[in-house]
Amino acid sequence: MKKTLAVDMDEVLAGYTKKVLETLQHETGIQIELKTVEGNFLSKSLDPQLVEIVSSYPYRKGFFRDLEVIPGSQHALESLSDDYDILIVSACMQHPNSLNDKLSWLNEYFPFIPFQKIIFCGEKKFISADYMIDDHPRHLETFKGIPLLFTAFHNINESRFRRFEDWHGLEKFLLNQGH
Amino acid sequence: MKKTLAVDMDEVLAGYTKKVLETLQHETGIQIELKTVEGNFLSKSLDPQLVEIVSSYPYRKGFFRDLEVIPGSQHALESLSDDYDILIVSACMQHPNSLNDKLSWLNEYFPFIPFQKIIFCGEKKFISADYMIDDHPRHLETFKGIPLLFTAFHNINESRFRRFEDWHGLEKFLLNQGH
Repeated sequence: MKKTLAVDMDEVLAGYTKKVLETLQHETGIQIELKTVEGNFLSKSLDPQLVEIVSSYPYRKGFFRDLEVIPGSQHALESLSDDYDILIVSACMQHPNSLNDKLSWLNEYFPFIPFQKIIFCGEKKFISADYMIDDHPRHLETFKGIPLLFTAFHNINESRFRRFEDWHGLEKFLLNQGH
Repeated sequence: MKKTLAVDMDEVLAGYTKKVLETLQHETGIQIELKTVEGNFLSKSLDPQLVEIVSSYPYRKGFFRDLEVIPGSQHALESLSDDYDILIVSACMQHPNSLNDKLSWLNEYFPFIPFQKIIFCGEKKFISADYMIDDHPRHLETFKGIPLLFTAFHNINESRFRRFEDWHGLEKFLLNQGH
């Protein structure tokens, strides 16, 4: 039986923060360099007024529809699907308008993932799989399988989980695990 | 720690088939009595032409927004939430337009269920919980906890799972389990 790999969306498959910062700059002229806020969430690093602005973006209809695909993720998931049951697991229930956008986005960029393997939830602790790849330590903390951390600006100081900087390394690691 | 109870939506919390048959009658004049199709899914009982019609309904925007609440379910879930972590689990990913309607419907009729406890998926076999209440045997078959069958017209001949005819009996059973 294939092992199950639960894959997160934002920051792992989709460039969420990139769009947040681009939108902020476009709409307010304020430019934030990711380098200057590394090691924490934007909600902890930015001024309260900016936090309020950027926190409103994921509630917008269409916001998640045109996120950039994280480099290498399409190739990796397609190649890993021979050895793994790929499960897309996104904790997006907090943002009602994201659901349809996320589903359409997946259908466009990851058409080889069938609807049976897509899960939208509020928390990931009820999801059972063999591996979970995520940029959020809180999801990996409650996971009962093997946790894999995907590097993102906010998690660079996290040291509890095996870390992957990109899909190239992750794909190689998982292909070796499969055999 | 509270035990987790995974609760299905259609036919368990929401009167899906009732609306399907009402819509069919309203739009085509064809009246189907549930009694006459008991023991099987509509897709197996009706003429192919009718199957095509009723299978298109769940793709409609708004179809799931005004389903009737199954009697006793609100009271039962509210009272059970003292003893159980209530998780709503709906296999609705096949019907993209249902996602927002289902979330709005839950927020309206089950406002005490937080977004953290709502899961929309394609298959339920990746969901881990202590109990699962569902009208579909296929979801109970792959469940690793204690499966509970909620009676629906299509499952009356199913004998593999503990069966509940309504929320009154289910609530009583679960309250006793909790202590």
